[in-house]
Amino acid sequence: MNAEILAVGTELLMGQIANTNAQYISARLSEVGVNVFYHSVVGDNSRRLKECLNIALERSDVIIMTGGLGPTRDDLTKETVSEIFNRKLELHKESLQKIEGFFERLNRPMTENNIKQAYFPQDAIIIENAKGTAPGCIIEDKNKVVVMLPGPPSEMKPMFEDTLMPYFKEKSKYRIVSKYLRIFGVGESALEEKIMDLIEGQTNPTIAPYAKEGEVTLRITAKCEKYESPDEMMQPVIAEIKKRIGHAVYSVEDKNLEEVVGELLISRNITISLAESCTGGLLSNKLTGIPGISKVFNRAVISYSNESKIENLGVKPETINKYGAVSKETAEEMALGIRNASKTDIGLSITGIAGPGGGSEEKPVGLVYLAISHSEGTECKEIKVWGDRNRVRNVTCLYALDMIRLHILKGSY
Amino acid sequence: MNAEILAVGTELLMGQIANTNAQYISARLSEVGVNVFYHSVVGDNSRRLKECLNIALERSDVIIMTGGLGPTRDDLTKETVSEIFNRKLELHKESLQKIEGFFERLNRPMTENNIKQAYFPQDAIIIENAKGTAPGCIIEDKNKVVVMLPGPPSEMKPMFEDTLMPYFKEKSKYRIVSKYLRIFGVGESALEEKIMDLIEGQTNPTIAPYAKEGEVTLRITAKCEKYESPDEMMQPVIAEIKKRIGHAVYSVEDKNLEEVVGELLISRNITISLAESCTGGLLSNKLTGIPGISKVFNRAVISYSNESKIENLGVKPETINKYGAVSKETAEEMALGIRNASKTDIGLSITGIAGPGGGSEEKPVGLVYLAISHSEGTECKEIKVWGDRNRVRNVTCLYALDMIRLHILKGSY
Repeated sequence: MNAEILAVGTELLMGQIANTNAQYISARLSEVGVNVFYHSVVGDNSRRLKECLNIALERSDVIIMTGGLGPTRDDLTKETVSEIFNRKLELHKESLQKIEGFFERLNRPMTENNIKQAYFPQDAIIIENAKGTAPGCIIEDKNKVVVMLPGPPSEMKPMFEDTLMPYFKEKSKYRIVSKYLRIFGVGESALEEKIMDLIEGQTNPTIAPYAKEGEVTLRITAKCEKYESPDEMMQPVIAEIKKRIGHAVYSVEDKNLEEVVGELLISRNITISLAESCTGGLLSNKLTGIPGISKVFNRAVISYSNESKIENLGVKPETINKYGAVSKETAEEMALGIRNASKTDIGLSITGIAGPGGGSEEKPVGLVYLAISHSEGTECKEIKVWGDRNRVRNVTCLYALDMIRLHILKGSY
Repeated sequence: MNAEILAVGTELLMGQIANTNAQYISARLSEVGVNVFYHSVVGDNSRRLKECLNIALERSDVIIMTGGLGPTRDDLTKETVSEIFNRKLELHKESLQKIEGFFERLNRPMTENNIKQAYFPQDAIIIENAKGTAPGCIIEDKNKVVVMLPGPPSEMKPMFEDTLMPYFKEKSKYRIVSKYLRIFGVGESALEEKIMDLIEGQTNPTIAPYAKEGEVTLRITAKCEKYESPDEMMQPVIAEIKKRIGHAVYSVEDKNLEEVVGELLISRNITISLAESCTGGLLSNKLTGIPGISKVFNRAVISYSNESKIENLGVKPETINKYGAVSKETAEEMALGIRNASKTDIGLSITGIAGPGGGSEEKPVGLVYLAISHSEGTECKEIKVWGDRNRVRNVTCLYALDMIRLHILKGSY
């Protein structure tokens, strides 16, 4: 079974957005044993779309189309497919009701053109869209499968996960399953040296490392027949890797560091408060993105000004005068101060120089102090992060999260 | 002159990387009046690559190929093109010397297979690669232009800029220039109704709307002869749109809302502080991402707990008891409180229910109150945002930023 992904949208051809949908769908299809042989992109133009669709039908078994399901005249996907397969567009009442309900909940009038989104080629299998007004659909015809999905990734992805992954799993003969081991605190080349023999010795499952801003991920991929268990194939390899690099593996489930830390805090009921300076709210934002965190996340102060450090966090003016706002001493007083003010188990602080301005020879851009205050004392860590403002802020948050994680894993709670 | 971008590489079809080269090249070509009508991606497979290239030659004047110029057997681009155009591959001595020099500088031995990178189809125009070992080339044949470029963006981009931009500028008769009007506070279908006649009546410039989480962008595209001014062609249309939807157009330069607001604050020296609850630091993070903001951004309090609202923001306990933490009254006291504490020109607060938990019939998920406090008083806005936790938080930030923007535009500063 080979597949082609056909994206429809002039915005792609103008270079306004990258075709990340094709990347996402390709990765997911490969996991269920569907080979993607082609990607194509065509604009909102009826004739050219028809030609592309005909080429795709000629060479591919499965065609996944994204985009062109909106309410405007530009949106031509269903119209073109219905013409090619000679299937009339018919009103799907249930979809219409959902679209109407959608607008009702928003307390906005539904405009006439939205009705178009409830029309589908005859006998199409409808794919509900929980995040937007454009449902998708599947057409099975002459041994071909054509899938139509909306273009916005936030709508497309859940539809793909909920409906199409099971659909193709059912159709496919074998499975390719990957697990992602996420690692912080060991560089890519150091890691490779530690597990080189495993990487080279394995054929199924395979092990592939790749580096991402400040951290490394190992992808473990097993290919198996439907009746086999990929988990069983992967477990010994994962156990061996964990044996070699220990606590640096922070997730075997492709969770990111804030999810892991958020879940640790919530499950053990450890309360926390933050005092952020150079990260400007990024760490708060990451942690408060975890559902259920409000039980343990008390507050954060984004103390961009010295007054805020003094007033909200109880940092002594003489500490700032003597050592500077970016110093071990200020970081420690910030962590202690936010913990005292909020009466939480943990108080964590960040103060540093994110750049592009503000650096000096003594205190260069990328210098950051992190402090963690808890019932047994206050610890401070100095780090030097390379890169631009964004990278410094992002990587600093990883260090902060890992400090919290390692502190909790010490077993004081 | 219409173009197609044909990327070669199995890693794209596996979903390991997104085809950002196509995005980049499309955007640049459109600026010099070359219309990109298609993108295609095919794997490192000789037969399928040949088929794709033949389809492209059938329908496009210019074909830009990326990838497949490496030293391995997998790399088939030049071989396939030479076969199709019936032009032998010939050694280009200058390129070979450069490749040898490249390895010398790295102090590494050149492997045999690297010689392949110095072979090109007969009479090709060679494009130097300053960043890597694979030069590119151009073939002009039977009114068609085929360009071959290496896949890594860091190599491809400078080659495109230095050689191909001048090449296509010279060839092109006209230019296509787009401007992006970014709009907040008017939905896509409501907007379309207001300017439907413009969208349908215009042929040059054209107007195309597209929606993104909570906001809408209008792309205005003018096509003009080299001696004409695209700006002059677009100005009347932009003026008419602005007349119809007014202040909802927040940028005509494709800036996002936090950039626009950040620049307004910095340029007018208006100081600000934030009190965020349900957005958990997202707004602080967005604003502190703007370089230079530290001049006007004083502090933020992420008051997840009621105690923090009371202690840091001076919200009265009886206000929370009587109206709840998510209420107009609490929002107003938060905004006033953070402004008083920080002595800034503007204090802005957000309190709401981001979900998934915490909603009730009376106060459902997505209900948010935003308040802005300034020298003339405090105003509050109630909004209802649909979608998941992430969407609620993101769209809420857009509303908050827009409140600040509209307040500043009223002209008090």
